[in-house]
Amino acid sequence: MSGQTVADIGEFGLIAALQPRLRTSAAVEVASGDDAAVVRLGAERLVVSTDMLVQDRHFRLEWSSAGDIGRKAAAQNIADLSAMGARPVALTAAIALPPHTSVEWVLGVVDGLVAEAAEVGAVVVGGDVTRAENVTISITAMGVPAGSRLVPRSGAQPGDVVAICGRLGWAAAGLAVLGRGFKSPRVVVDAHRRPHPPYAAGPAAAAAGATAMIDVSDGLLADLGHIADASGVQIVLDPQLLPIDDQVRATASAFNADPLGWVLAGGDDHALAATFSSDASLPDGFEIVGEVLAGSGVEVPGYRHIGAPGYDHFRE
Amino acid sequence: MSGQTVADIGEFGLIAALQPRLRTSAAVEVASGDDAAVVRLGAERLVVSTDMLVQDRHFRLEWSSAGDIGRKAAAQNIADLSAMGARPVALTAAIALPPHTSVEWVLGVVDGLVAEAAEVGAVVVGGDVTRAENVTISITAMGVPAGSRLVPRSGAQPGDVVAICGRLGWAAAGLAVLGRGFKSPRVVVDAHRRPHPPYAAGPAAAAAGATAMIDVSDGLLADLGHIADASGVQIVLDPQLLPIDDQVRATASAFNADPLGWVLAGGDDHALAATFSSDASLPDGFEIVGEVLAGSGVEVPGYRHIGAPGYDHFRE
Repeated sequence: MSGQTVADIGEFGLIAALQPRLRTSAAVEVASGDDAAVVRLGAERLVVSTDMLVQDRHFRLEWSSAGDIGRKAAAQNIADLSAMGARPVALTAAIALPPHTSVEWVLGVVDGLVAEAAEVGAVVVGGDVTRAENVTISITAMGVPAGSRLVPRSGAQPGDVVAICGRLGWAAAGLAVLGRGFKSPRVVVDAHRRPHPPYAAGPAAAAAGATAMIDVSDGLLADLGHIADASGVQIVLDPQLLPIDDQVRATASAFNADPLGWVLAGGDDHALAATFSSDASLPDGFEIVGEVLAGSGVEVPGYRHIGAPGYDHFRE
Repeated sequence: MSGQTVADIGEFGLIAALQPRLRTSAAVEVASGDDAAVVRLGAERLVVSTDMLVQDRHFRLEWSSAGDIGRKAAAQNIADLSAMGARPVALTAAIALPPHTSVEWVLGVVDGLVAEAAEVGAVVVGGDVTRAENVTISITAMGVPAGSRLVPRSGAQPGDVVAICGRLGWAAAGLAVLGRGFKSPRVVVDAHRRPHPPYAAGPAAAAAGATAMIDVSDGLLADLGHIADASGVQIVLDPQLLPIDDQVRATASAFNADPLGWVLAGGDDHALAATFSSDASLPDGFEIVGEVLAGSGVEVPGYRHIGAPGYDHFRE
């Protein structure tokens, strides 16, 4: 490790290096490395996740409104709790701002946070504001199990089916549109600005017996790779079953892009991916896209994905 | 508010503008604006606080080791929980890093976080790493009431005494030393690098019936001002009772500075300030420094403080 930089080992190398340093305790039921941690808090189980958004990396002031940025920051943390089968209760927000930032803009961000939290009955209970060169927003979402069980990444078994719920590729299509200087198709641009994660589907999947679950934030291939790694299995996707929504297909057609690339490697829609035993009844909204086998890694037979399977913040 | 920047209204103006936007709910027992928020989490009360530290504003890479920075980041959040009378259980950390950051340095920060959390029996349960131009560390500390009662800022009553526990002015003296290019007196420089908040004193003060309590992070005058505002009282300090420790006095003498200025406006030691009814038995470590009267604001008779009563991140 000596002399290496975080760019040398990448985001996931860094996380792998950090995790062994986090001493655990009897209070920790699920440690760092899942969508959210689970820790005993007196008589309850606290489910907690944190994510940081940095200006010009996770959002651009010229592409998104303050309200959209607030909603997006809240949404990605709420989606992490949903992917455990948890119900969010409270969010905190720490925000760094350049001094020339307009007060109205900051109020818009906070209104967005509050509105998105309200969609799941949660409240923003406090935070911190400080000064920095760029806007940085760090959210922590805290909740409790929605039902009797929480779903980790590590429970997928050979023979399980792989199912997804929610949009795939919409936000990636929108980002591609904006990146080329266009503002339409509006529907995918809006999807980039403000995700619509299927929050209720996480607790529903937990109740239906999901064996493993993850919030698709890095990209479907990358995030299913996290399930495969944590569960010690192989995941094989059926390209015929992968949904390419009309909005994504039309955008790809207009921009001469590969829509399946957006579906497989785009993350910002915060879809849910879960595995279920083959005899389980899938909750509404989940569609089977593949199966779990013995082995390792993620395969899409007949499809050769060009580029990284997902986003690494230190390598681009 | 239209057209105003955060520099125009300052850190506390911004907080005051934001607080009404945070919708509350029946679950919220203490809302944003205290050292920590208190929210019902199933059968428990979750006490939560968040703070963000930004490179070159809250720490300098050339002045502090990675371990010191990690300890300081954890300490200021743990101190917030202590100042409510809460016991920390878990911390999360979101860290933004330039890609050239050494892995060893990041591991050092995390080791510092973990070690400081361990001092109060808490664990670091997870986090996020992302990329930015400058190092930014956002910590959220979560805990439960240590005993049967929590102590807000708002309960001070005329007739109460004002007492403090912990160091005052040490870290400010150390910062002044470093700012002038020196490295000694080492004891105050070390106090700047790594605070030693009196964590156990917060729950002890709660058990002893403290009527209001605050973590001194902005400076004693500023933070007692927060108690005075929240409680609707005046606080009068006795300059004869304010402790000027030998280490602070010696540094001030060597640098031709006013030691009482550091005691009154320095915050990074994370002392505790609390009010108690005049017949209460003060817990070990608390010393009376003033009294609560009807009125408003904070007075130090016979002393004219030059400069701001504390630090405002958007005005300097």
